[in-house]
Amino acid sequence: MAALVRYKLTIAYDGTAYCGWQRQPPPVPTVQRALEKAVGEIVSHPVTVAGSSRTDTGVHAQGQVAAMEVQSHLEAPRLRQAINSRLPPDILIRELIPAPPEFDITRAVRKRYRYLIWCGRDRPVFYRHFVYHFRRDVNLAAMRQACHLLEGTHDFIALRGRADERLTTVRTIYHCDVHVRGPLLIFAVEGNGFLYHMVRTMVGSVLEVGCGHWPPERIAEILKSRDRRQAGPCVPATGLCLQWIRF
Amino acid sequence: MAALVRYKLTIAYDGTAYCGWQRQPPPVPTVQRALEKAVGEIVSHPVTVAGSSRTDTGVHAQGQVAAMEVQSHLEAPRLRQAINSRLPPDILIRELIPAPPEFDITRAVRKRYRYLIWCGRDRPVFYRHFVYHFRRDVNLAAMRQACHLLEGTHDFIALRGRADERLTTVRTIYHCDVHVRGPLLIFAVEGNGFLYHMVRTMVGSVLEVGCGHWPPERIAEILKSRDRRQAGPCVPATGLCLQWIRF
Repeated sequence: MAALVRYKLTIAYDGTAYCGWQRQPPPVPTVQRALEKAVGEIVSHPVTVAGSSRTDTGVHAQGQVAAMEVQSHLEAPRLRQAINSRLPPDILIRELIPAPPEFDITRAVRKRYRYLIWCGRDRPVFYRHFVYHFRRDVNLAAMRQACHLLEGTHDFIALRGRADERLTTVRTIYHCDVHVRGPLLIFAVEGNGFLYHMVRTMVGSVLEVGCGHWPPERIAEILKSRDRRQAGPCVPATGLCLQWIRF
Repeated sequence: MAALVRYKLTIAYDGTAYCGWQRQPPPVPTVQRALEKAVGEIVSHPVTVAGSSRTDTGVHAQGQVAAMEVQSHLEAPRLRQAINSRLPPDILIRELIPAPPEFDITRAVRKRYRYLIWCGRDRPVFYRHFVYHFRRDVNLAAMRQACHLLEGTHDFIALRGRADERLTTVRTIYHCDVHVRGPLLIFAVEGNGFLYHMVRTMVGSVLEVGCGHWPPERIAEILKSRDRRQAGPCVPATGLCLQWIRF
């Protein structure tokens, strides 16, 4: 009988068809459930695939990280192939390796998210599931200033969508910036953790600055206020992608 | 009562959800039918939207061109907006202008198609509807040689999927090449017209050269043979996109 082995998985998914990462009662389609089903078909015992980030409905990932314990005679590369061949086309295990002993899925030290804003005059036909269409002209310099004011260690409670079980609302943002590529504004943020809806509310607030509704300094005031009503709207999930997680 | 005006339309669509361009009996979803429905809701008389190219099931377009005659009090820009707001998110009228008197939808002089080949080791998660996943290593220099042998005026009957009503099978290819961008091979071809499945059979033949099954010179022999069985396979529709049409 094969030994129980703990694996670290790096997973990409197009979140369009899923009600987020986290398993929910059937028939709600979630990424975690699709993965656990595919793995279960290979190893023939029930499996929990524990993810590091609970992405929301419609949010994408290039590098979600998860852990699982399975009994299988397959070596890691063959196990990866076997699971991938049973996954739907919108989910892919990019890497599957035996987890280092010190690996703890709950101890991410740095995560990067990207948010894509489509500034074209017309609707994005080909990118429609991966961008947010923002129709107003924006001031890029003001947006970058706003981004930089989000960097550092702050209480981000004003940018949190709703209360959850996390005890502290203080997070450190190592990097926050926005740049232009053709009709796209690419917003990128790296931090040691993110509260519920925090990235999307950051983007919504930075866009308020971008279209001239607020001066960049307003960002510092929002943080200081600790009041959700001071921040900008939570922008749609489609534009958001979890890029990578470091442990 | 508004006069009957003839318009020239430039249309982009993600062909994934459609059984090609051409209208078919309901409930078969086609791009032409979706357009005629949306236009009909605005102008309140039946409309025919005549396309220049009949793209197949799953084929995309950045620049399909079509013509229609409608009675409407709306100026062209407002008419475009009104129709776009009634179209599904995977179809967009990029341009709508009164057709020049000499404009004839059946008289295209040059068309450009692009075919995307995904050469990554793994399935493409985010591009899966827009590429063909080709798993073998390819020789780019040999493929480019093969492409250049397709340029010029030839009888392309050996690269035709099946007979259709077009009288001659002679076409002129002005440009045919392939280049690399990251994990993608981008195949581009411009010609004065294309037979049924011709671009996809060109790509299938060039890939046979690329993976070393055939020497590049085989392309000239295929054309000379006038025999479909000598050519490579017709590759999947997903990778194909009609880029533009000139009149």
